[in-house]
Amino acid sequence: MSLQKLSSNKAFGGELVKYKFKSAALGGLDANFNLFLPANAASGKVPILFYLSGLTCTEDNGAQKGSFLGPAAQEGIALLFPDTSPRGAGIEGEDDDWDFGTGAGFYLNATNPKYAKHYNMLTHVTLELPEIIASAGLPIDLTRQSIFGHSMGGHGALTLYLSSVLKGVKQYRSVSAFSPISNPTQCPWGKKAFGGYLQGGVDEARDKYDATELIAKMGKEPLHILIDYGTGDNFYKQGQLLPENFLKAARDVGYDEVQVRVRSQEGYDHSYYFISTFGADHIHFHANFLKA
Amino acid sequence: MSLQKLSSNKAFGGELVKYKFKSAALGGLDANFNLFLPANAASGKVPILFYLSGLTCTEDNGAQKGSFLGPAAQEGIALLFPDTSPRGAGIEGEDDDWDFGTGAGFYLNATNPKYAKHYNMLTHVTLELPEIIASAGLPIDLTRQSIFGHSMGGHGALTLYLSSVLKGVKQYRSVSAFSPISNPTQCPWGKKAFGGYLQGGVDEARDKYDATELIAKMGKEPLHILIDYGTGDNFYKQGQLLPENFLKAARDVGYDEVQVRVRSQEGYDHSYYFISTFGADHIHFHANFLKA
Repeated sequence: MSLQKLSSNKAFGGELVKYKFKSAALGGLDANFNLFLPANAASGKVPILFYLSGLTCTEDNGAQKGSFLGPAAQEGIALLFPDTSPRGAGIEGEDDDWDFGTGAGFYLNATNPKYAKHYNMLTHVTLELPEIIASAGLPIDLTRQSIFGHSMGGHGALTLYLSSVLKGVKQYRSVSAFSPISNPTQCPWGKKAFGGYLQGGVDEARDKYDATELIAKMGKEPLHILIDYGTGDNFYKQGQLLPENFLKAARDVGYDEVQVRVRSQEGYDHSYYFISTFGADHIHFHANFLKA
Repeated sequence: MSLQKLSSNKAFGGELVKYKFKSAALGGLDANFNLFLPANAASGKVPILFYLSGLTCTEDNGAQKGSFLGPAAQEGIALLFPDTSPRGAGIEGEDDDWDFGTGAGFYLNATNPKYAKHYNMLTHVTLELPEIIASAGLPIDLTRQSIFGHSMGGHGALTLYLSSVLKGVKQYRSVSAFSPISNPTQCPWGKKAFGGYLQGGVDEARDKYDATELIAKMGKEPLHILIDYGTGDNFYKQGQLLPENFLKAARDVGYDEVQVRVRSQEGYDHSYYFISTFGADHIHFHANFLKA
């Protein structure tokens, strides 16, 4: 698993580097990611915040459009931007739809044999990327990880965080999301993804990959969750996101606004213009826990 | 010249709107631009800052990747992002090269008959866009205009500003640029553009479209110029930008660092990662003059 540097850009006193490596989790395919190291990484290990992007995106969208790098540089936090799926698996039909297959990995491990060799973004993000960073000797303190994401990536961030808390692993100190798919077993995007990637379909997803179902099982574990969504978001209006379901489940098991904060932002939509507006807020939220 | 709204995104408490209209300056072709209005535009006219993008770009690059909207919202300044050339003129060869024709209008008015009907980005930016904004009743105070840009757009911003000062028009209160093409009659990009668009070629460009030549004629007019370029910029290293020539010409005629400030930024490149790093700086620079 050796890392190849594809490009490097100085930004906000730090450096954004695009890497490529042969990903075992993704069946031996090449995988790219962007890593932003703030200037203070030159003098010691820094905490890391993972950003999971949404449908159709790559490792570039968040890095280019999120307005995250400035606040991360200010806080002294690294940012890691993975891709959103394997690329070039050669599976029949994987490039037919924008909301399934390439660009739409849903941050799960596929169990449908057709996809199980390559579509393992869960392992890629939670295990493989931290390992490859550590083995490359990059100046990251892996005891200080947090995660955030947008839309499908918000779903990924919430489910990876909650699963890790449920398992008692506590891989991530905090999670945040912009317009997350919050109850995917109840929305068209989620049903399609789970129906395709998982042998057991939506039923198999319920206990593992649905943030609303996951938080409904909790109540005692301390949580640090921030969610923003816009009331002008067409996908929200179409019932793809369902943040109210997540909020209700959280309140029903006793989480208050300090532990699970869900903010409705008047008139904002699903775009990176929305994300960038609240990007600094999210970075500072995570910094509270990453630097504690 | 009626304006059609193509899309609208709430951002940083304000609104980014993409407009389309039939552009007389561009020979009747459809032209797009993005306009960001900060929240305070709801209660009165606001100053406006034009951003001219570089080769291959559209009206979207600066809006999406520049990290300009947040600082502009904070300062209460509107941002206007024009396209970089006419689109679809149907002139033979206009789509063959990335540095000439479509996406590469160079902010001039063509005199070569082949291009003269459509390639008039100078008139489009300096006259047509302000007019259409005024006639649409948008809440912009056109007595408070400034301009900035990147690369080819830095060339555009500098030459439009200096020409207006030389003519005594003072359309723009201040100018800034990221990695501008500063002496285009001396670099390959400029020679190619002027050779193609202008009947008199590079000779015709010297007095009108070369920032270094323009400033060399001045010395008495008060100027407000800020330029940033990166020492890791490959186009700088290849001699396409030549900011030192501009700086020397400015100093030779007596402009000091207060009036003409050219900053060399160690290790930065030509990308939007560089631009976004210093984006807030440039917005605040212009705010000093726009709000004076």
